[in-house]
Amino acid sequence: MRDNKHALRIYNSLSDEKEVFTPITEGYVGMYVCGPTVYSNVHLGNVRTFITFDIIFRYLRHIGYRVRYVRNITDVGHIVDDADHGEDKIARKARLEQVEPMEVVQRYTVDFHTILHMFNLLPPSIEPTATGHIIEQIANITKMIESGYAYVSNGSVYFDVARHDREFGYGALSRRTLKDMAAHSRELDGQADKRNAQDFALWKKAEPGHIMRWPSPWGEGFPGWHTECAAMSTKYLGARFDIHGGGMDLKFPHHDCEIAQGEACTGQAPVNYWLHANMLTLNGKKMSKSTGNHILPQEILSGESPLLARAYTASVVRFLMMQTHYRSIMDFSDRAIQAAEKGHERLMQALAELPKLAAGGCSTLDISEWEEKCYQAMNDDFNTPMLVSHLFEGVRMIGLIREATASLSAPDLEHFKAKLHTFIFDILGLTETQQSAAGGTTLESVIALLTGIRETARANHDWVLSDQIREGLGSLGIELRDTKGGAGIAGEK
Amino acid sequence: MRDNKHALRIYNSLSDEKEVFTPITEGYVGMYVCGPTVYSNVHLGNVRTFITFDIIFRYLRHIGYRVRYVRNITDVGHIVDDADHGEDKIARKARLEQVEPMEVVQRYTVDFHTILHMFNLLPPSIEPTATGHIIEQIANITKMIESGYAYVSNGSVYFDVARHDREFGYGALSRRTLKDMAAHSRELDGQADKRNAQDFALWKKAEPGHIMRWPSPWGEGFPGWHTECAAMSTKYLGARFDIHGGGMDLKFPHHDCEIAQGEACTGQAPVNYWLHANMLTLNGKKMSKSTGNHILPQEILSGESPLLARAYTASVVRFLMMQTHYRSIMDFSDRAIQAAEKGHERLMQALAELPKLAAGGCSTLDISEWEEKCYQAMNDDFNTPMLVSHLFEGVRMIGLIREATASLSAPDLEHFKAKLHTFIFDILGLTETQQSAAGGTTLESVIALLTGIRETARANHDWVLSDQIREGLGSLGIELRDTKGGAGIAGEK
Repeated sequence: MRDNKHALRIYNSLSDEKEVFTPITEGYVGMYVCGPTVYSNVHLGNVRTFITFDIIFRYLRHIGYRVRYVRNITDVGHIVDDADHGEDKIARKARLEQVEPMEVVQRYTVDFHTILHMFNLLPPSIEPTATGHIIEQIANITKMIESGYAYVSNGSVYFDVARHDREFGYGALSRRTLKDMAAHSRELDGQADKRNAQDFALWKKAEPGHIMRWPSPWGEGFPGWHTECAAMSTKYLGARFDIHGGGMDLKFPHHDCEIAQGEACTGQAPVNYWLHANMLTLNGKKMSKSTGNHILPQEILSGESPLLARAYTASVVRFLMMQTHYRSIMDFSDRAIQAAEKGHERLMQALAELPKLAAGGCSTLDISEWEEKCYQAMNDDFNTPMLVSHLFEGVRMIGLIREATASLSAPDLEHFKAKLHTFIFDILGLTETQQSAAGGTTLESVIALLTGIRETARANHDWVLSDQIREGLGSLGIELRDTKGGAGIAGEK
Repeated sequence: MRDNKHALRIYNSLSDEKEVFTPITEGYVGMYVCGPTVYSNVHLGNVRTFITFDIIFRYLRHIGYRVRYVRNITDVGHIVDDADHGEDKIARKARLEQVEPMEVVQRYTVDFHTILHMFNLLPPSIEPTATGHIIEQIANITKMIESGYAYVSNGSVYFDVARHDREFGYGALSRRTLKDMAAHSRELDGQADKRNAQDFALWKKAEPGHIMRWPSPWGEGFPGWHTECAAMSTKYLGARFDIHGGGMDLKFPHHDCEIAQGEACTGQAPVNYWLHANMLTLNGKKMSKSTGNHILPQEILSGESPLLARAYTASVVRFLMMQTHYRSIMDFSDRAIQAAEKGHERLMQALAELPKLAAGGCSTLDISEWEEKCYQAMNDDFNTPMLVSHLFEGVRMIGLIREATASLSAPDLEHFKAKLHTFIFDILGLTETQQSAAGGTTLESVIALLTGIRETARANHDWVLSDQIREGLGSLGIELRDTKGGAGIAGEK
């Protein structure tokens, strides 16, 4: 393999430019991605973000890096309002449902894992939880108080944004200045404890009745949302690591707050490359439960949505998502997914023809050039839409070889097959099986086809064929039972 | 439904007797089960234990309890040797593989969840991790030091077994006396810090180079294995809760150490009913990797084991396990699973006939009596083998009705159907699909049957049938392509 590691360029949100990717330690990549807050079912938009980083993870591994990919579970600290007032999202859900908060966490963590598994995402290397790292967060906060970047106020601890701004410049990622922020900030309850409205909570005092609480040097409380990612990323990846990713909406305040904490704790910015996946819209509009313009990932697989004509497979959804670059807004619609389904079928059909292609004496197609273009696409900030177009070029090449209009030598043909498999299955993470998530649909329809043929045979008094089908299905454990109205399936043995 | 809640009797390891089950709070059950130590693939024996408690969880819910089922993940603290010397199992694996310990934890947690999902276990209500509860463990240890049940020695903290024995009597579950224990204890390295050899570590000092470490009032270290379950069970279920379960091998020291800590912390025993699932042997012998008498759960589903004739479904494995009572040793073998497969097939075949049974004018079979016997079996310490025998009595009844030798009135027939489904699917957790874990086998064989029929049709110049099959499969996205040698599947569209 050519040296694709050194050709990789990544769009860094910090510089707003594509930069050559150079890892801190040659051969190794540390990557942190903000995971879900587990208080509700995972959104389709989140699925898009996680599929984006799944493909980045897969590609980095493919080009030879040993990747430590950390994706957290936020199970405490995500306040309903970003201005640090209001309730913790998980505690709120638990209160409304009258269960222990960790039961909420468990239900939606299981949902999250189930959905991501359906969409063929690889598990990350480490999946830390916020409640599992209270000690590390307290240690970080203590350090920031000692160095004067944070202050205790009425049992809570806040990060002193003005102090940080003086030393490092706050808002490097969002390019907001403190002055802009001040101009746009609202007067809110619960802000009285802060020196400045822009200061953010590192630790929140637990009011009486708040169930999620831990002892700390500042009394009982719980960590703020921004505190956890700062603590967990650096615990597992070091004070400075290669890649930090997340949804575009996390740039500010979440990611700018992480940078500020890293700088306050260690004197240096914690991350070299910041990557942000763009939003997903549905039928051209923002998804919203209240307007009904909303769809859950599992509803696409089951077809149970008024916005869809029918069910689609997870691999088709992945394929659709690949066709928009991760930094662009992607619009999801029934029409778009039907088009993706056709493309997915063409691709899989071509793959199925591959084993039947015969090698020629020489090559009239330049496989190296084609391969080079595929890598160039991925090396150009993971340009999956471009990769997909090269894969369709591959489909065209398969057609030419089949029709004997072009030929490939045996080694070239082998290489071509291997690379197609690598890009389609290993890197894009598509899967061959066309079965819908409902399961068994295809099997049932094939059986229905068989029993239909048998009906005709019986009507024509073709007992040989009729018996052949009944016995054949019987040997597979599927028993047909003849009734007056026709044959019914008695079920599997 | 009759009041099955008040009829339930459970064998309590603490009294060595079957006792009527009375929950602490009417209508609610708190249940804690010791989960896996995630440093290797989950054993078949562990799967048996977890299936046992899955059925207990399902049954308690079925008879109307709101159950909070807590099953932990041990991701730190499980020392290779129970005598508190040697390395932490996870840290050791991480050192050998040169990865971060939490990467080991993640890999085997994912494996554990995947396997349990395959075997159709319901997720517990809460799945806490030991590393996620360091603060709670430190708080418990502090309390025990203050009340004189624990002492600090050279940076570690030990539980003073002699002190506990004087107040409460140590070894209630295992019925071992301190004197017996002393007679059987070996002289070991690393015991010098303890007052008595029987004392167990609540907190271990982290030696330089030990990666898993947290700050504590006694210096940097990590919690002992017995500490975590004591802290997590009472955090989520209260100082005294209803049921604690685990494998038989955990009775001593693990569970006796949990009781001792509960008594030291709160003055009362923490658990009302202790339940222990017995061992699983393979071909009559203890499983052991070194002798080759070993099988992984996934190898049963894939058939990839020299000890098995072929693959079996997860539901068949569950069904086999149901046929031994959880307190008896169960022997797993190819012969036993083949027999279970036959029984499973008979049961599923009978279920498939159910919808076709016609109701009679009156009932000549006593469904209430049959139902009563099913509940009695489960109420008799979850006697699943007895329940299975009653389910086969149900199969016999289906046969009698089909042959019109017996009849059921319409309401009785409906009730009979509903109860069979409840016991088989909801309580035992069996599943209907017969597809092997390899997936797709059945679909492929049905397609093969169809293409075989088409081959014959083509040989007989029956172009109508041949085209009907090709077009029918085509409409399902399965394209046949005729070649000289016959038809091949070109792949799904």
